[in-house]
Amino acid sequence: MSRPVTPLLAADIIIRLRGMSKYSVVLIERLNPPYGWALPGGFVDVGESLESAAVREAKEETCLDVSLQALLGCYSDPSRDARGHTVSAVYMATASGKPTAADDAKQIMVMDSRDTATRLAFDHRQILDDYIALLKTGRIAPLR
Amino acid sequence: MSRPVTPLLAADIIIRLRGMSKYSVVLIERLNPPYGWALPGGFVDVGESLESAAVREAKEETCLDVSLQALLGCYSDPSRDARGHTVSAVYMATASGKPTAADDAKQIMVMDSRDTATRLAFDHRQILDDYIALLKTGRIAPLR
Repeated sequence: MSRPVTPLLAADIIIRLRGMSKYSVVLIERLNPPYGWALPGGFVDVGESLESAAVREAKEETCLDVSLQALLGCYSDPSRDARGHTVSAVYMATASGKPTAADDAKQIMVMDSRDTATRLAFDHRQILDDYIALLKTGRIAPLR
Repeated sequence: MSRPVTPLLAADIIIRLRGMSKYSVVLIERLNPPYGWALPGGFVDVGESLESAAVREAKEETCLDVSLQALLGCYSDPSRDARGHTVSAVYMATASGKPTAADDAKQIMVMDSRDTATRLAFDHRQILDDYIALLKTGRIAPLR
């Protein structure tokens, strides 16, 4: 079989710190384009499961050891990343301790996910809106 | 950015025919290796959302127009496809009418998903077990 060409695959993580509000999430300021604030995450390596990639990327960018809780959803709109079609599997996770920016992260902040003043990269505002809806209703966002 | 290399991406579909048992699913016999019975599905095209790929693949292989209901989960174990690391987003869908084998499908059958006598390709037995657990308990399988 010649190798098919499919969209790139990433894993992103919504990290809630234990002891903080359920709406608080860890965001990173990206060191590389597209600049701005975003959920921690990155490309999945061949030979690595999505879950392993999520745990690895969280560790690399925030120095946190996360416990994955559940999959929030898959985000696959071809226009969601201007660099090229990238599908993201988004996991919800918890962690303890203080996040520290590392690797592709310039800075870290813990933000209330309901705060819309900070402009987020990619479709991460949509992802957080889906997360908030899940927290409020117990329901996963409908397929788009 | 040089294009990263990430696992291949596929969408697979659990199709339930309206009016039939909730445990019944449409399976195809694969025309190409690995041979055997499997859920309909296939590789996602660049520029196509996961949901569009799921609807397209269902139509191509079973001639059914499916309505996607929800994402069952993502299956990303590197060993799940011997041809190379392929991550699958698995959708649950409903459809009306009679499925007909086409494209990559040699034959079609509608099977009770609890019937374990038929050996399935890839990790599709695991996927159906997760589906049955969801039907029985209302809960999505825990992350692996």
